[in-house]
Formats: sequence, structure tokens, C-alpha cells
Amino acid sequence: MLLQRLSLCRLVTCILSVSLARANGNSFAHRGELRQAKRIVVKLGSAVVTRGDECGLALGRLASVVEQVAMLQNQGREMMIVTSGAVAFGKQRLRHEILLSQSVRQALHSGQNQLKDMSAPVLEARACAAAGQSGLMALYEAMFTQYSTCTAQVLVTNLDFHDDQKRQNLNSTLQELLRMNIVPIINTNDAVVPPPEPNSDLQGVNVISIKDNDSLAARLAVEMKADLLIALSDVEGLYDSPPGSDDAKLIDIFYPGDQQSITYGTKSRVGLGGMEAKVKAALWALQGGTSVVIANGTHPKVTGHVITDIVEGKKVGTFFSEVKPAGPTVEQQTEMARDSGRTLAALHPDQRGAIICHLADLLVEKKQEILAANKTDMDLAANAGQLSSALLNRLSLSPAKLNSLAIGLRQIAVASQDSVGRVLRRTRVAHNLELEQITVPIGVLLVIFEARPDCLPQVSALAIASGNALLAKGGKEAANTNRVLHELTQEALDIHGVKEAVQLVSTREEVEDLCRLDKMIDLIIPRGSSELVRNIQRAAKSIPVLGHSEGICHIYVDSEAAIDKVIKIVRDSKCDYPAACNAMETLLVHRDILRTTLFDQIIDMLRTERVKIHAGPRFASYLTFSPSEVKSLRTEYGDLECCIEVVDSMQEAIDHIHRYGSSHTDVIVTENEDTAEQFLQQLDSACVFWNASSRFADGYRFGLGAEVGISTARIHARGPVGLEGLLTTKWVLRGDGHTAADFSEHGTLKYLHENLPVTQPQPRQMTSSN
Amino acid sequence: MLLQRLSLCRLVTCILSVSLARANGNSFAHRGELRQAKRIVVKLGSAVVTRGDECGLALGRLASVVEQVAMLQNQGREMMIVTSGAVAFGKQRLRHEILLSQSVRQALHSGQNQLKDMSAPVLEARACAAAGQSGLMALYEAMFTQYSTCTAQVLVTNLDFHDDQKRQNLNSTLQELLRMNIVPIINTNDAVVPPPEPNSDLQGVNVISIKDNDSLAARLAVEMKADLLIALSDVEGLYDSPPGSDDAKLIDIFYPGDQQSITYGTKSRVGLGGMEAKVKAALWALQGGTSVVIANGTHPKVTGHVITDIVEGKKVGTFFSEVKPAGPTVEQQTEMARDSGRTLAALHPDQRGAIICHLADLLVEKKQEILAANKTDMDLAANAGQLSSALLNRLSLSPAKLNSLAIGLRQIAVASQDSVGRVLRRTRVAHNLELEQITVPIGVLLVIFEARPDCLPQVSALAIASGNALLAKGGKEAANTNRVLHELTQEALDIHGVKEAVQLVSTREEVEDLCRLDKMIDLIIPRGSSELVRNIQRAAKSIPVLGHSEGICHIYVDSEAAIDKVIKIVRDSKCDYPAACNAMETLLVHRDILRTTLFDQIIDMLRTERVKIHAGPRFASYLTFSPSEVKSLRTEYGDLECCIEVVDSMQEAIDHIHRYGSSHTDVIVTENEDTAEQFLQQLDSACVFWNASSRFADGYRFGLGAEVGISTARIHARGPVGLEGLLTTKWVLRGDGHTAADFSEHGTLKYLHENLPVTQPQPRQMTSSN
Repeated sequence: MLLQRLSLCRLVTCILSVSLARANGNSFAHRGELRQAKRIVVKLGSAVVTRGDECGLALGRLASVVEQVAMLQNQGREMMIVTSGAVAFGKQRLRHEILLSQSVRQALHSGQNQLKDMSAPVLEARACAAAGQSGLMALYEAMFTQYSTCTAQVLVTNLDFHDDQKRQNLNSTLQELLRMNIVPIINTNDAVVPPPEPNSDLQGVNVISIKDNDSLAARLAVEMKADLLIALSDVEGLYDSPPGSDDAKLIDIFYPGDQQSITYGTKSRVGLGGMEAKVKAALWALQGGTSVVIANGTHPKVTGHVITDIVEGKKVGTFFSEVKPAGPTVEQQTEMARDSGRTLAALHPDQRGAIICHLADLLVEKKQEILAANKTDMDLAANAGQLSSALLNRLSLSPAKLNSLAIGLRQIAVASQDSVGRVLRRTRVAHNLELEQITVPIGVLLVIFEARPDCLPQVSALAIASGNALLAKGGKEAANTNRVLHELTQEALDIHGVKEAVQLVSTREEVEDLCRLDKMIDLIIPRGSSELVRNIQRAAKSIPVLGHSEGICHIYVDSEAAIDKVIKIVRDSKCDYPAACNAMETLLVHRDILRTTLFDQIIDMLRTERVKIHAGPRFASYLTFSPSEVKSLRTEYGDLECCIEVVDSMQEAIDHIHRYGSSHTDVIVTENEDTAEQFLQQLDSACVFWNASSRFADGYRFGLGAEVGISTARIHARGPVGLEGLLTTKWVLRGDGHTAADFSEHGTLKYLHENLPVTQPQPRQMTSSN
Repeated sequence: MLLQRLSLCRLVTCILSVSLARANGNSFAHRGELRQAKRIVVKLGSAVVTRGDECGLALGRLASVVEQVAMLQNQGREMMIVTSGAVAFGKQRLRHEILLSQSVRQALHSGQNQLKDMSAPVLEARACAAAGQSGLMALYEAMFTQYSTCTAQVLVTNLDFHDDQKRQNLNSTLQELLRMNIVPIINTNDAVVPPPEPNSDLQGVNVISIKDNDSLAARLAVEMKADLLIALSDVEGLYDSPPGSDDAKLIDIFYPGDQQSITYGTKSRVGLGGMEAKVKAALWALQGGTSVVIANGTHPKVTGHVITDIVEGKKVGTFFSEVKPAGPTVEQQTEMARDSGRTLAALHPDQRGAIICHLADLLVEKKQEILAANKTDMDLAANAGQLSSALLNRLSLSPAKLNSLAIGLRQIAVASQDSVGRVLRRTRVAHNLELEQITVPIGVLLVIFEARPDCLPQVSALAIASGNALLAKGGKEAANTNRVLHELTQEALDIHGVKEAVQLVSTREEVEDLCRLDKMIDLIIPRGSSELVRNIQRAAKSIPVLGHSEGICHIYVDSEAAIDKVIKIVRDSKCDYPAACNAMETLLVHRDILRTTLFDQIIDMLRTERVKIHAGPRFASYLTFSPSEVKSLRTEYGDLECCIEVVDSMQEAIDHIHRYGSSHTDVIVTENEDTAEQFLQQLDSACVFWNASSRFADGYRFGLGAEVGISTARIHARGPVGLEGLLTTKWVLRGDGHTAADFSEHGTLKYLHENLPVTQPQPRQMTSSN
């Protein structure tokens, strides 16, 4: 009766539900498709359901699972849960009962050996399971009720699947439950299964072997034609060798054909026993048309959303797929890039220059091919109708754009001659012991750019010039253009056998997943909107990010400023390209010029240029009728808008900029050289200008050649970053059997530390190894 | 009866419980003392208990709270919970009932406007509360049962506190429950309180104003003489100005005297209404002798352990204290350091040099004072008996140590002349438009060091020389010595008015908390064990860390190596100081020397030096009786132990090092120059040596003067880091009213980009501002 009433209520939800594409009987080919999964089985291993000390349930994790399952159910998906945990729940209850039937003396005695010892009486697993079943179900029901979701209990054994009649009954029951939007919670009927082998992992209790639930979930998923089986336990997923051994790597996508490449551990708990059985069950489900993901449901960081993350296609755990994609995985791409990049770094500078020049030639020669691909992208974008004209403009290539791109590349080729292997310092440490500090590439760069396809050859040329390997990830809109441009880049690289040093990362890869490839990628360079940069800075926890997310640039007009310069500089800084990061956002004026012609002329100019003015609090207080007061003095308008604020002195201007600026670029306009020099010296920004527009903060305008970006970081590279920012150093010491002990107090040698002149030797060409 | 039986069981736990110091009636002076809190009231605001969409309870958060409370209870603390949420729970139930009493047509109709609309019927809050109370309590009980913890329900109103008799009854009931180790769960008896004002935050339902529970919890905490009240809601804590406004800062510790310094928001939900009432209640509790922490119980990242973190003294939320500590907070110290550091950076290099020399003089002059403080530390350490002799050795200072420290400082003073303000590049961009790139300090450094007190003057001198502000955090063991050394440093700094540029951070501060001060600290430099470095790298998510956690250095003995050099270099690299990061861990030998006298001599030498040998898998396969095989080829022994492995060629040695090394320092021993040069060029480590001991990887030995550390990072600084690693650059552009538009296609100017000779101008002294 209750069920009936609730099913009515769920019916409503059902009608509202998002309609999802029903899988065609085959498993999904890649993670992105998991979003379409309609029928999902979530299997909770006992490690997920029980607490670490095994004497109860892990409430937090269970609550989180319930929350995610209910959310997915509300999206119109059909969710089923295969759960363990009745044993632990029952054990908890039975222990209590045993304890309470002891005398106080007994209790106190055992108590002294801590609570753990209370579990000493060996409880029979099947008794525990029976005792725990009702409580476990009650808990699930109480939790799901919070999400207006109804549950039903189904107890099965593996044997039920062997009897056709039983199997059909089970099938139709579950179908009916799903039809009524009820979440079936399935558990093995532990009370009636044969006694299991003892499992040494759990103290004091023989539990049902975990294998049963794995194969049960797989059978059930196939029987119910589920699209996806999510198997959660306490391991991250499947490793290519026993976890903990050198180089053990989590497998992102597993293909049945790859099975021989895996070494299962023989001793480890997550080795032979657990994992091989899991894989077997997973492959069985996969053959039956159900996609499988094995993931960790106990990891504190992902507990909150491991299930929804998987359904959203994120890289969590190991995904089982029957369809092996044509290309390599991004991890394999990174390794290929690093290997090939090391060879690239060892080339002669002339060879790196030749590659870049060849790429420049190809851009002109293969113009037709590039423009045809670009037209495809443009047409697709126009048809989709989702891109603004500004974006379409950035997406489009033209013969002129390709020509100037080629010219830029040849400039990079010239600059590359004096980059890698440059000697920065030479020291004679002692007789016959010489130390050199030389420039070397950083390693593997990940450059993420948006719609602009001209980014790809430019960034590739910079990476090649600096001997770095590159992973380039372009926007989906430019996929066809980028593919052609990347082929040409590889063609150019191939003339010196380093084709794989530049890799194009599939547009399917999530930026967030790429940012987690630490130890594989050395530097991330986002090129795009400040939002892109901010997202990447947030996502890349242990990989440095080069760039800036904010450009809040100031112009300070001093009391001794020349009127014509002020007008020219303020106009150029704000109006030349208002969306640029080096455009002025706040105009600081000295109090003394407030009621002068100069000030009126500034305002007139800004009005003529249609710049919307916001008033800082102090400026507003000076006016009878003030323009709108700013919400924050720390605003990047990025448009024909700016803030005006009044300061009492150059020193106050500096304080204001230190407080509200982003340390990008700040300008003083004054004729007083002393004031200017103090401003230039004291102000703590990457670029500080005197009587010049803030728009000069740019690699090309600074004469650095091409620009990788502008950095507001305080270490490594600051301001516009050219080739040099893509290099690091290494120390080379050449001795003759020298030991540190030789130089100790009682040693025979003394340090000389003589600075030697730095002569640039011709870098050696790479020859075959010994 | 059940209660009785369970209380018996809890009695056992009670006897086991950790005995905690009972507070003496006063509130705690600082967060560290919170560990001693015995009686704790946890107040859960409705934002913590209910879900975001307000139609049910936030199960995950509740489960986490229950877990933490049970854990603390198990430690022997007396826990009480003041909860909201009955309204939300009841609303959920009543909505269900209303829905079920509608016709299907009605349900379908309202369903089309999404589930949210189902809440349309306005439910009376008191009815909701009554309906929800039993369910809420059942849920708490089910959850606490998982932790063998018994709960009791107590319903009160604020009015109950005004009636003495009622108050006493409540008090003795709660005392009795606590005595029996039962967790009282207290809620307002909403059904009988006067109708509340409507609250616009929650749609469709008038809820009991949050204020009631705040003052209820405060009254209860004082009445029960609780040591600590933890008030959890959805705000991080108390801000000094309305959150979201420029510069709004979370207050770490709040003193009643500071109340005037806070501006409450007038519009924001967390402003006047919520927060002022919370503060009022908190101050009331504080006056009654109960410490208070207001924190966010909904933040996804801290949900897992906000309560236990608070009790462990971590910086979470706002701590209310009656006792204002003598010194400034670490945030204030950082700001003072940054301000003073900017003045330091603007000093003339001679002035910075003079400060360092003065400090060197003071170390010698005030010898007695320093050594006396050091003796105090040594005595304390010896009495505590917890420090090893190696640690005591590092802790102790001597006149000789102080003298050599002073000599080192004078060397840094000399090196400092040519550091800040050095011109690295000069470019004539156009006529009258000149660009300079100059070196500038990084900003604020945080240096964390362990027992060694000589670190403090050394690091201070390096920071002063490079114009950086410094926060120094030393080990507790050296507290007295560090205090004296820091006073001397400030005395030296004071000669040029920059006393505050070097700050000593209290030993009470947790390293983890310091690592979270992003936007205030620019670079963290850990000096100590690799464990310290690893912990800091883990904790400092958004501040760069300079250093290295691993030093797995290799010596590759080539087939053409000279026997005497091999023996000398291997012995020095492994045995000179086995615990050093630049000591050899793995010896790679060319296959051809395996059965030669050379190899036998290496083994003999290692045996003589008592070096324990582990065999790599390949080496082991060559031997009939092999020493123990290594578990991992990526091991840092840090002791008289090493691994030996066999390679076929120099190229294979490089591959091995790339795969298992830590890119710190690697050495080739060979007489073949070609082989050596290829090794030096291809190997991708910070330091690559030919025929020299790995022990030379050190700032002093490299001739860099003092060393900040050795970096294995690939950006900014690599290998031994001296003064230069503490500098960054800025770009200075001096123009004459130049605009970027002048240089556009239709402009009148062309870029020159002429490289100018770099002449080092005398830096300007700081003068008073205009």
C-alpha cells in the first residue's frame, strides 16, 4: 500500500525526467558517452560501506552515495545498488548483544584492552548478515527518503541466475521496480549461501568473500541490460603492475585485448585475489554490453562525487571499453613527447632553426589545405550559430594571416640560435675542476588555447626553438584546422626525426584531467580568457602555471604632468584595445589637478571616446553630482569603462596600486624626473612605465620576438615572456677525480671560485651512443 | 531499560577515556589549548543540517558531524549537540503527505513546473517542526548507534532558562546524561514557542529564526560550564568588513575589545542579521567562561573534519578569546614584514650590506647572551630526553660556530652589492623610449627550519641581501636561542629603520596554517628533513615551494673509467656524509667491468667502509650469491647503504637515471671525453658531473656564497640556490608620451628594438616622497 502510494509520487518524477538516449546494446566506446547511460548499477564493496575499524558502517560515505544515486535518479536514470555491509552492521549489533550479556566485571576486564578487543568473540558471518540485513535496509530507506526516493530490498544468490525461471522472476521484479522509479537495493542472501572461506582481512569474523558481490553485480547488470556498472572499492582502479612497485600506473582505459600486459600482484590484498576477480567480472559484464568503471569509493577527496564524476565522463578509476580508440592515450602522448623532446633538445640549434623554417614554408605551401580545413570549421561554427562574430573572427584564417604567421616563425628561428645550451656562468672551482651553468629546456609544456588556430604553429615554434616538448590542446571549434596545422608541424619535425615532440591533445580530453598529470608535465601555459586561466590555476595544484588571470592596470597622473602626454597616454591605454589585459582600468589623479583645465580635458576626451566613468569613493566625495560609485576598486572592466580615483601624492598612488592592483603594468605621467624615478623604483609591478602607454606591455613591443604570455607570478618569469621564459638551467661540473673530502679542513685542496669569461661553445651535435 | 543497558556499556568506555584537564572556569587563551576542552557544545545551524534546496536534510554533513562527535566522545570528552533541522525534515514529510492527498491530475499538473513547485503550499513552521522532530531524532540515533554511542532528546525553549527551577532541572538532567556518556541532542521546542517572523531565505515556509538557536547554544554552554562552543553555519567565520567587499578579511582570533573594528554588512544575509547575533551570543558565552569558535560546517573541503580540526587547534573559522596575546598575529606580522620589506628593497645596497655586517658584529659581541639562551634550550631538550644526540648537536651553538657564522654573513654582505636593481637588459624600443629589465626582490619569504638555530641569522642575511621580507619559523627546541638571534637581527635592521622586515613566527603556529597564507607569502623555503619538505609541498597548494624532497643521486662507472678516480669518487660520494641529499644512492656499472679487478676493488672499498650493498634485479641475476635484492630502484637510503645495478651502455645509464632518479645530481666516471660530453649533455638533471664527487652539489662549493637550498624544480631556480634565486625581475619603460597607436600600421613610428650596453647605474637612495 505504501509502495503503491509512493510509486504514484515517483511517477510524477518519471514523467519530468530527462530523456536519455538508450544504449544500442553495445558498451560505450569512451568516457564521454557515459553521460548517456540510462540504467546504472552501482556496486558498493564492503570497504566502501564499512568503517576502517570494521565495527560499523561508514555513514558519511553511504550518505554521499545515496545523495549521488538520488540525484542521478532524479535526472531520469534507472539506478540499482548492489551493496555489501549487512555483515558489518550485524556484527556491530551482535557485539553489542554479547557485550550486554557479559557481566560488568567481564566488560571492564575486556575494556582495559581497548574497545577493539570486544570483537574477540568470533561471530559467524551468516549470523551477522542475517542480524544486519534489516538495519542496513532501514538505514538506506531513511536516507533515500530524504531525497523523496523510494527503495526496495532484493536478496539474491548467484545460484538464482542459473535457474531460468528464477532469473526471469528476478528480471521482471526489477523491471517493475525500475518502471515505478524505485531504487532496488540488492544484496546476497548471505544466510542461505554456503559457508565462505575465512578472509583474514577482517578480524574476528568470517565474511562473505568479496568475489561474490563482484560477479553478482556483473550478472545483474547484464541480465538487466544496464548501460553502466560502477564498481566501488578501496582501490583507485586497475594498475599495470602491482600497486606500490616502481612505475605502477593506474590504467585509465582498459581493453580486453590488453589483459596480458597486466601483472597482478601475488601478495598484495588488491592483487591476485581482489583485483583479478574484479577484472574478470568486469570483462564478463563488458561482453554482455555493459560498460564498467572500477573506482575508489573510499578516497576522502572524491567521496563527495565519485559516482557523478564517472557519469559525467571524468577520469576516475579504470574504464573498461571494448573499442580501442585509434590514437594513443594522453599519458602515452606525454611520454612520446618527452622522449622525442629530449632528442629535440640535443639537436644542433641550426637543426631546430631548420625545423621552424620548414614549418614556416609549409604554412605558405600548404595554404589551400589549411584554408579548406579552416572553412570546414567556420561552416560548422556558423551552422551551430553559437559563436559570436568576435569568436568567428578569431577562428578564421586567411592567406595574409598565414603569411605573417610564417614571417613570425622565421623570426623565432633566428632567435632560437642563442637559446638552449647558452653558458650563463663559468667558474674555476679548483685546478682542473670547472663548473658551468647552461640553459636547458624546461621539459614538457602543456599549452591550452581557445578558438585561435594560429596559436598552434606559433606555440609549436616557440617550444621547438627552446627544445621543449609540447602538448597542445586547442578549442573544439578549430578541431579541423588544428589537425592540419599539427600534421604540418610533425612533417617539419620529421626532417630531424623528432616528429613526436609536439602532440595535439584530443578535444575530448577534459582540461581538468590534463591539469592532474603532474610528474608528467612541467609547465602549463593557458592562452585565452582570464576565466580559462583562473580555471586552470585552480585545477593545476602541483604543476606551475605561467600567466596571469587579472590585469588591473593603473595610470597615475601626477601634479607635474604635461597635458598633451596625459591625453595621449590615457586615450591609448584605455581605448586602443579595451579588452586587452594591459589596458588601463583605473585612472589615479593627483588632487591638485582636480579643478584644472587638464582634468576637464581628460574627462572631455573620455566622453568623446565614449568611455563610461565610475567614481572611486574619494573622487565621488569631491563631486556634487558624481557618476556611479564603484563597487570595488579592484575591477577589470575589459571594456570602454574605467574608474577614476583621487590621491594626495605619488606615495598614495603607489599605496593604492599595491592595495588594489594586480601587479601587471602601471604607469606614471609626470615631467618631474625625481618623482618618476621614485615611482619606477618603489612600485612593485611586473611592468612600470614613465610617460608611456600601458599597452606597451607586450613581448613583441618589448622586442622579445614572439610572446608566450604575460606573467604576474613572482618567480621564474615576470611580465611578457619570450623564449627565455621557456628555459631553465643545469650545472655542469668537469673534474679529474675530485672529491669533496679533498677540500675539507684537513684536505689538500683549496677552493678557487674564479669567474671565467663566458664563451659560447658550439653545441655538440648528437651522435650515436656508445 | 534500553537506556540503562546502554549506559552500562558506555560506562566501560568512560573508564577507558583519556583524562583531560578540566578548564579552570576561564575560557582558553589560544587555539592550542582547545585540545584540553573536555565539555564541548556543537551547534549546528540550519544551513549545516539542511540541504541546499531546503527540502530535506544534508545527510553527508550530518553523518560527518556524528562521526566526529562520536570520535571526540570516545576520547573521553563530554559532547552535546544543539541542532536545527526538524523544520526541514518535517517540511519534507508534510509535503509528501500533501502531495499524496492531491489527485493524480493535480500532481501531474504541478509536476510539470518541476518538483520545486511542490513546496508551494505554505507550511507552518511549527507544524513542520513537530512533524520532523521524531524523524530527526531517529536519524541521529541510527547514526550514533553506528559508533556505539547513545543519544537522548532534549527539547527546550529560551524561556526555560529564565525560570530558575526549570533551569536547574535541565542542568541536572543534562549532567546525568553526560555522566552516563550519553550525547544529549538539544533542539528548541518549536511547537510551543511564539510564532516567528517570516524569513525570506527559505521559500514557502516560515522557519524559526536562526538567532534563537545561537543564543540557546550560548546559554546552554554557560549553564553547563562547557569549555568550548563550536557554532557551525554556512559562513567561514567573522569578517572585519562585510564579506565580498574589497579587503574583507576573515578574523582568526576575535577579542571582545576589538568589537568596534568590525563593520557589519547591512544588506548581506550573513551581515547584520545573522552575524551580529552570532557574535553577541558568542561574546555572552565567552563572558561566561566558554571559548567559542564560529566556523563553516558546509564547506565541502572541510566537511570531513571541521569539528576535530577546531579541537586540534587548527586555524578554522573565528576563535573568540578574552586574552589578547602580547604579540601581533601572523597575518599582521606578514603585513608588517611586507611593508618594511619594501623599504628594505629601496635602500642603497651599501645600507643593506651595513645591516648584515652589523648583524655579524652583534653575533660576536653578544656571544654570551646567545650562548646563555642556547644553554637554556639545550638543558630543556636534555631534560625532556626526547632529542637524539645528532639533534642536540645541531641545536648547540659555540663561540667557534658563531665566529664562522659571522664570517659567512660578511661574505653575504659583499655579494649583496650587486644583487637588487641589477640591469639585465636594456633596449631602445624607439627614439626616447627605453626599456630596462632589472632585478627586484621576490617579496615575502617564509623560511621554515628545524632544530638548527644558526639557520636564522644566515637566512635573515640572505633575505636582507636580496631585499626580501622574511617570516622565519624555527623549531620549538631552539625557541630561546631563536628569540635572542631574532632580537639581534631586528637591532641590526633598525640602523636603517627596517626593523620589521624580518619576523620570527611563534612556535605555536602550525606549519600547515602558514602554508595557507597565499596572496601574503610569495615563496616558501623549507630547510630540513625531506619529510618536512614533503609535508610543506603537500600543504602549500598555491604558494611555490623552493627545495627538493628527494636526492637519489647516481654514479655511473663507464667501461673506460680510471680505477683510482672511481674509487675516490664513489667513496667520497657515498661515505663523506651519507645522510646528505647529494650522497650517492645508486651505483651504475657498465657490464664490461663486472668481472674485472676494478669492480672487485669497488666492492672491497665499500666493504671496508661498511657500506651495505643492495642488488638491482639485473646485478642480482649475474651473481650466484647476491646480496639482498632492492625493493625499489627509487630508494634514498640516506645511510651507509647503496644499490648497485648493471647497465649495457652509457645510454642505458641515462635511461635508468631518467626513470628512477630525482634529477638532483648525477655523475659519470670515464676517461672518454666523447662519452662524458654526451652524458653531460643528454642527462636531464639539475647537476651533471664528470669525474667529480656528487658531494660538490652545494652552493658554497659552487662558489655561490651561502645557499638557500637545492632545488629540483624545473622553473625559477635549479640546483644549489644562492642570492640570485631570491630575486625576480621587473620591466621599466621610460618614454616621452609614447602610445602603442603611434606604432600601428598607420602610425608615425617604427620599433627599433636596439640592444644597448648594460651599464650598472648606482641605485638611488630612498628619499622622502612628494
